Amino acid sequence: MAAKTQLLKNIRPWGSETTDLLITQGKISKISANQVPSPDCDIHEGDNAILLPGLVEAHTHLDKTLWGMGWRPHQAGPSLQDKIETERRLRREWDIEPHRQSMRQALLSIGKGTTAIRSHVDMDTDCGMEGFEGVSRTREALAGQVDIEIVAFPQSGLLNRPGTLELMDQAMRGGADVVGGLDPCSMDRDPKGHLDAVFALAERYGKPIDIHLHEPDELGAFSIEMILERVHAHAMQGHVTISHAFCLGMPDRDRARALVAELAAARVHIATVASPHRPVPAASELKDAGVTLCAGSDGIRDAWGPYGNGDMLERAMHLGLRNNFRTDEDVGYALRCCTYNGATVMGLADYGLAPGDAADLVLVSGESLIHAVVSHPVRKLVMKGGEVVARDGKSLIELP
Amino acid sequence: MAAKTQLLKNIRPWGSETTDLLITQGKISKISANQVPSPDCDIHEGDNAILLPGLVEAHTHLDKTLWGMGWRPHQAGPSLQDKIETERRLRREWDIEPHRQSMRQALLSIGKGTTAIRSHVDMDTDCGMEGFEGVSRTREALAGQVDIEIVAFPQSGLLNRPGTLELMDQAMRGGADVVGGLDPCSMDRDPKGHLDAVFALAERYGKPIDIHLHEPDELGAFSIEMILERVHAHAMQGHVTISHAFCLGMPDRDRARALVAELAAARVHIATVASPHRPVPAASELKDAGVTLCAGSDGIRDAWGPYGNGDMLERAMHLGLRNNFRTDEDVGYALRCCTYNGATVMGLADYGLAPGDAADLVLVSGESLIHAVVSHPVRKLVMKGGEVVARDGKSLIELP
Repeated sequence: MAAKTQLLKNIRPWGSETTDLLITQGKISKISANQVPSPDCDIHEGDNAILLPGLVEAHTHLDKTLWGMGWRPHQAGPSLQDKIETERRLRREWDIEPHRQSMRQALLSIGKGTTAIRSHVDMDTDCGMEGFEGVSRTREALAGQVDIEIVAFPQSGLLNRPGTLELMDQAMRGGADVVGGLDPCSMDRDPKGHLDAVFALAERYGKPIDIHLHEPDELGAFSIEMILERVHAHAMQGHVTISHAFCLGMPDRDRARALVAELAAARVHIATVASPHRPVPAASELKDAGVTLCAGSDGIRDAWGPYGNGDMLERAMHLGLRNNFRTDEDVGYALRCCTYNGATVMGLADYGLAPGDAADLVLVSGESLIHAVVSHPVRKLVMKGGEVVARDGKSLIELP
Repeated sequence: MAAKTQLLKNIRPWGSETTDLLITQGKISKISANQVPSPDCDIHEGDNAILLPGLVEAHTHLDKTLWGMGWRPHQAGPSLQDKIETERRLRREWDIEPHRQSMRQALLSIGKGTTAIRSHVDMDTDCGMEGFEGVSRTREALAGQVDIEIVAFPQSGLLNRPGTLELMDQAMRGGADVVGGLDPCSMDRDPKGHLDAVFALAERYGKPIDIHLHEPDELGAFSIEMILERVHAHAMQGHVTISHAFCLGMPDRDRARALVAELAAARVHIATVASPHRPVPAASELKDAGVTLCAGSDGIRDAWGPYGNGDMLERAMHLGLRNNFRTDEDVGYALRCCTYNGATVMGLADYGLAPGDAADLVLVSGESLIHAVVSHPVRKLVMKGGEVVARDGKSLIELP
């Protein structure tokens, strides 16, 4: 926590009227115009820029980005299995070292105003705990710069590779924050076995769950039903996230809406990338039903694909474009998915722009909130717990 | 045409090996490494940046952007008709002056490396020839900076507003380049009448056609059939573009593929925005069938929506994301849609990166071609006919 008092002059919280914001001991202590700084106070002139709470990257893969490794043409074929196998091979051939790479991506994200990251981290019988150990080191190295939550993620399958469940258990014992899962039907060919194992692990360690669900249409809907049954049986309401949930973009809108209502009742969260080439959950439907929708970059420039830059303000734009959002209200909701909703899903305490909230803040130019989303200019200033961690788009720590 | 000889040192044409490129009298005259400049030659150090032929904005609306007018919240309701009527009202209330606004957008585009623009320009019984006159003045003012093609566009309907066809005729007589059309079924409620009028006008002036087709699914497919009949009857093969063609993203893929084959046979082009929230033509299907697919920004920050910035390199990324393109070959094709294919559709002579081609060029950093697409950094240098028109992302002419 920052010992020093900080004063942000002439900033517009969430795009509202210009005011000043005082930070004491790492927390927002006072918001009012024309504050007179105390002599020992650091002053940051905001020039009427918009102040947002720190952006929340709620779904990514820190351990596998190729950022900073030189451009490498995409190699994998179109299927999910192709991508998984190609990545397993390239991890060795290219030396995709999880600590170095997660440092690079996390610092990139800090530069773009992200103050909290939920990262799925691969564990399988090939790479073992390498990913977990590498990202854990990054989490430690960047403590105070960005909050990193680690999801123990069985990328290559859970039951179909004996030994993986033990690795997941080891990761949870070693400090992983969330139990991951992946396509219970199509990956493990044993939805009951897969989900029972995931929920048992979560119960054992008292941790939340985040399950990748790429399964389309009725197959994915079936997996959602199976997940819902277990959310109720294990009283995990409010502690389970389904990532992607492409099936909620299914053609049968009545079926999808009924599932969304059940997800709302079970307080299951959805994480989306707003993929433009897949069906995706309809953001407005989730909002209307009361389901918390958060967002993430997913993989950034990795063996899965060449896109991405970690900018969660740009992600809000993608979410808006994907959902045909045009009004201030709708695009503002897209930004909430990349801020407040991500904080809800990650269970961040004291998140927001009110007195008493942690001073996790990002300053960005814009005539209005929506202007900031659609133009997503370079972030002027990023603070974590009241300390400056990035200026002019760059983390104060150099990329390794 | 530039009288002065120009030498681009250390550039990588289309991402290939580093070389030098000599420009004489506005045309590429020699491409080879280690050229020794003549004494009267301007030298531009490329620092191994990628050289692309000028980006082609093949579908936009220069007359109606709000760029530079201060942020204005979106007002229109969700339907096409809402958007059209809201825009008609706001054009007066907000004074969306076509010359000023088209200058702003065109200069924005030049800064991002665009050297040719096809702009639909509204004409209706309310705004009359104002748009045409304003964009014509811009075309004249920016001659030598960017090629602007004007499509006489009946945005509010053609037959349903008597007098509009006469305005279209007047525009064609006054120097419009392309005859526009719009949703022959759903807008005019008279597909035969609409298309007969459009094709007759094109025949009268010997000009190509570009028809906006938002009509979904089988309705749009029916309009495509009606268009195809007239392409053959009027021997307009190679001179007709269908913009959007959302219906080609219809669920019945066999039906869509059959239509695409007929479009290929009639040499009809497709222009796309790669909208993430609508069905869109499958870019690979068009490519495989031999249909020329070009791309555009559509409206940029206007009464239709808040998005857009005129960056056709970023548009190539959107096209890639929308079509699930990941390999160098596929993303490279997305870039071709925003360069060569746009030039084909606009009938640009001497377009390209070979000796003899016009020196319409853009220089951009990137480890590879695909890296330049996904990161779309600020354009270092833009040339039109061998003259520098933009540096570091900014047109040399200031925005009005």
